[in-house]
Amino acid sequence: MDLAIDLSNPAKALSLPHIRYQLIRLEDTVLYHLIERAQFPLNSPIYTPGALQIPNSTLSFSDWVLREQEKLQSQIRRFQSPDEYPFFPDAMQPLILPPLEYPKILWENDVNCAAKPQRAEKAAVEEAQENYGSAATADVNCLQSLSRRVHFGKFVAESKFQSSPETFVPLIKAGDTQGIDAAITDAKVEKKVLERLRLKAEMYGTDPGMDAEAPRKVNVDGVVAMYKDHVIPLTKVVEVDYLMQRLKGSEWE
Amino acid sequence: MDLAIDLSNPAKALSLPHIRYQLIRLEDTVLYHLIERAQFPLNSPIYTPGALQIPNSTLSFSDWVLREQEKLQSQIRRFQSPDEYPFFPDAMQPLILPPLEYPKILWENDVNCAAKPQRAEKAAVEEAQENYGSAATADVNCLQSLSRRVHFGKFVAESKFQSSPETFVPLIKAGDTQGIDAAITDAKVEKKVLERLRLKAEMYGTDPGMDAEAPRKVNVDGVVAMYKDHVIPLTKVVEVDYLMQRLKGSEWE
Repeated sequence: MDLAIDLSNPAKALSLPHIRYQLIRLEDTVLYHLIERAQFPLNSPIYTPGALQIPNSTLSFSDWVLREQEKLQSQIRRFQSPDEYPFFPDAMQPLILPPLEYPKILWENDVNCAAKPQRAEKAAVEEAQENYGSAATADVNCLQSLSRRVHFGKFVAESKFQSSPETFVPLIKAGDTQGIDAAITDAKVEKKVLERLRLKAEMYGTDPGMDAEAPRKVNVDGVVAMYKDHVIPLTKVVEVDYLMQRLKGSEWE
Repeated sequence: MDLAIDLSNPAKALSLPHIRYQLIRLEDTVLYHLIERAQFPLNSPIYTPGALQIPNSTLSFSDWVLREQEKLQSQIRRFQSPDEYPFFPDAMQPLILPPLEYPKILWENDVNCAAKPQRAEKAAVEEAQENYGSAATADVNCLQSLSRRVHFGKFVAESKFQSSPETFVPLIKAGDTQGIDAAITDAKVEKKVLERLRLKAEMYGTDPGMDAEAPRKVNVDGVVAMYKDHVIPLTKVVEVDYLMQRLKGSEWE
């Protein structure tokens, strides 16, 4: 669906400042969607297959809604974009628009960890009663923005690889995933991400017309913990998985 | 889709403070969605029927995406909720969940102005190139939240009617729509809405990590103008249309 702005320009797409800008902007998107989701109770039955009977499907209600969304969005080019990955690759439909020609930015790879962020998101939401459709619809936005954030790791990884193949090639050849993980980790940047996220969650989650002491529209600690415990680690999993496939067919193979 | 929280409680649903709270919270939703939409260019071809060829449809691309969304959302009860109205009533599908029993809060009416906010929203977006799917998808969120805001006028109207039938019954009987419009208008509240909206657009549209002088993520003046010139007037159209049907079958007919 061409959500990825500027992915038509490979040099820009792989410049680290540009990637950072995108990731920072994506934090806003994630937060807006989480704040919207937090209006509704957790509604745990929507996540349990069989808890709600759905005609001709064994999926949970939440997964069914997500899958139907992906069916629709696949028709309008969402998953053509190199930063978009479906949770349900089997649900993809024919395009109704002519395909877009994206330049080759990433190395050939099959990394898709879109099934994983789901659990992470729930941490930021509180428990209670009924708004199944609303909750599941809000979940789609949350999950898709989190998935996009996590898969942006591919661009980060490609960018880091290109600027220092001498670091990565030996680690990749040795299958040293821990070494790769260490090489891509920047603890200072991670700390800054979490600080910025907290500040934004406070700001976007506060109604300026209300009492400053009013409860935030989203669980700020929950959001920060979700990034710390799930989003950042998953992004690194994507980066490592991507790099492990980076030499195949390359000059270093 | 049961997006409407607390509509299961008629007394609460019609209390003016409660309605105000909902409308204020909806401003946030509208702003988040507009900020997301403003990431993408206007992409005017998506609004022009025929500009993009869509198999088996004469709709504009944007309308096609909206209609497909409504088809999906109609299955998960969105339009059962008394504050949700489809842009494409002909696209409604059978429910996959058991229907919800909402108590009767509004008087029987057929007011649906969901086709109108579309033009209003465009004012807040700038012109440019290509992200058709992304833009149309972001539009769905904008349009649906604006439509919900506008149709909330029914609750406002019912609440005002119940607290002062002696004001409204003669005006309605006389078909005095201008008189009704005057009776429901509170210029001070409208001014406050616009001020609060400006403050929020500034706050949610600013990244706290960036330079305070950096451009906002959304056109603040555009958002305020959209509410002033379109959202508020359209809400009043809904209120007046609703009230014009309020006596039918009632004790005042």
